[in-house]
Amino acid sequence: MKIFWLSGSEVRKVLEIGEVIKAVEEAFRQHGLKKVQMPPKIYLSFSNGDLRAMPAYMESLGIAGVKIVNSHPENPKRGLPTVMAVVILNDPATGAPIAIMDGSYLTDMRTGAAGAVAVKHLARKDSKVVGMIGTGRQARTQLLAINEVLEIEEVKVASRSSEGIEKFVKDVSIECEITPKTIEEACKCDVLVTTTPVREPIVKSEWILEGTHINAIGADAPGKEELEPALLKRAKIVVDDLAQASHSGEINVPLAKGVIKISDIYCELGEIVAGKKTERTNKEEITIFDSTGLAIQDIAAAHLVYKKAKEKKLGKMIELF
Amino acid sequence: MKIFWLSGSEVRKVLEIGEVIKAVEEAFRQHGLKKVQMPPKIYLSFSNGDLRAMPAYMESLGIAGVKIVNSHPENPKRGLPTVMAVVILNDPATGAPIAIMDGSYLTDMRTGAAGAVAVKHLARKDSKVVGMIGTGRQARTQLLAINEVLEIEEVKVASRSSEGIEKFVKDVSIECEITPKTIEEACKCDVLVTTTPVREPIVKSEWILEGTHINAIGADAPGKEELEPALLKRAKIVVDDLAQASHSGEINVPLAKGVIKISDIYCELGEIVAGKKTERTNKEEITIFDSTGLAIQDIAAAHLVYKKAKEKKLGKMIELF
Repeated sequence: MKIFWLSGSEVRKVLEIGEVIKAVEEAFRQHGLKKVQMPPKIYLSFSNGDLRAMPAYMESLGIAGVKIVNSHPENPKRGLPTVMAVVILNDPATGAPIAIMDGSYLTDMRTGAAGAVAVKHLARKDSKVVGMIGTGRQARTQLLAINEVLEIEEVKVASRSSEGIEKFVKDVSIECEITPKTIEEACKCDVLVTTTPVREPIVKSEWILEGTHINAIGADAPGKEELEPALLKRAKIVVDDLAQASHSGEINVPLAKGVIKISDIYCELGEIVAGKKTERTNKEEITIFDSTGLAIQDIAAAHLVYKKAKEKKLGKMIELF
Repeated sequence: MKIFWLSGSEVRKVLEIGEVIKAVEEAFRQHGLKKVQMPPKIYLSFSNGDLRAMPAYMESLGIAGVKIVNSHPENPKRGLPTVMAVVILNDPATGAPIAIMDGSYLTDMRTGAAGAVAVKHLARKDSKVVGMIGTGRQARTQLLAINEVLEIEEVKVASRSSEGIEKFVKDVSIECEITPKTIEEACKCDVLVTTTPVREPIVKSEWILEGTHINAIGADAPGKEELEPALLKRAKIVVDDLAQASHSGEINVPLAKGVIKISDIYCELGEIVAGKKTERTNKEEITIFDSTGLAIQDIAAAHLVYKKAKEKKLGKMIELF
């Protein structure tokens, strides 16, 4: 039996952010309709990182699969990416593995896409100014994706280093003004995106104007938080997955400390996409999307890659057994 | 970055049962010493089968990995194997995926190897007669492996069909008498191996002589059992992993029915291999090894394959990203 193999450079050739957003939005809708299987991620822990297996089955697509992904923050010092991923897709009818592909770029893109889906459903329709705190890989794909759902006029960027900002401005290719700012200045915006790995909040509640939507992307492990808990108390909080976000998302620390309760969480994003819960209801409310990254996003994006690569005759069949 | 790829036919070229037994025995020893990480398998369920992700980290080998494996009992009708598996190995230091290989044959071999490790530590040293109930793929590798640790004089084989027995006799290449028997006759032996997928016990307690060792291999999902519960009550029960066996091994049904209790389980095989618990203590006791198949067996066997394939210059490097 042969299996379809796709390298990272081939994945890049077929992944278009607009299509990823559509696939990820549909994945959230299926999640909201409870038509997916997504057991909790399982972790292996090492002295300087971890490895996660993320399985999901999407009935609507007739596809199942597993992403295997690491997180090793010290890797860049060794010339390796922090995050490297492989995705395996399986046919639910026979269980047969049908495709294996690099999942690293796909991970960035599906995370950006989730941010865009949240902005589409939660940000004010007249949002024009985006604030970015953090300028790493996640920041780039967030902006790339949000640019698909908003008419952005200005991007305010805050980073630890001016070098980080310069590189960000050079790398992102969107047609609008991008200006370096302090964190406080960047917070004065319509849509704020935080992508930092901090364990002490860096966004103060008093800096956030009424009507702001926030994509809180950085917190992806117990102990991490970017937003002052007082801000969460002012906001409508939407999570990607309640179990996963409670464990490792922006809400994990305030929940553990008892600053907020599970009943303070408004809903999961999929419930809004599926029409079970309402979107933003007025111009004043602050909305927060707590993104941890779901296996359904990976499998939906990988399925899209698989279909498009077949169409474009990219990738190769290699002998499995 | 490139990754090492190994097809099933290449895996077959390097896997020798004697070496697999050593690797798997060492994996059980590490398990007994609590020096492995092995979170519970995670399942995706489909209408006619399932998919499992099985991660493990073996500190002693400096290797981590995940096996992704299906079980679709109706597959043979479609010309596909019931079980197909892929194993990914990762470097714990960087998290980088380093090798991907077919895991189907490896799964059979590591299951056989666990049977041999159990026989080595639990069967009477003078065992000469092996009884086999079931003649499928698992039966073959059980016999192949047990033949490495016992001087077998006779193999008694029971199967639903005479065709099954004929094929089994033709396929297994060990130098001893292999004779077709009824289940009751096959039970009169020193080491009994059951490899059937039944949900009603087919081995009666009264058929089993004192001093017999039993490898109970068939039960690998909730609801499956091969041995009459009365037999479990007469025996010293050793499991591969207590949590996994309680969920889906031979003991799962009698535990659920309250016929046996967790306190009736003697220990895990790794505790015996590590010297924490005693082996068989007399010629009379009946011992049962309840095998469900552990991720550490897969990762240990896959690591062996990886090392040997590199030495023999088999496999190929393919572009991941």
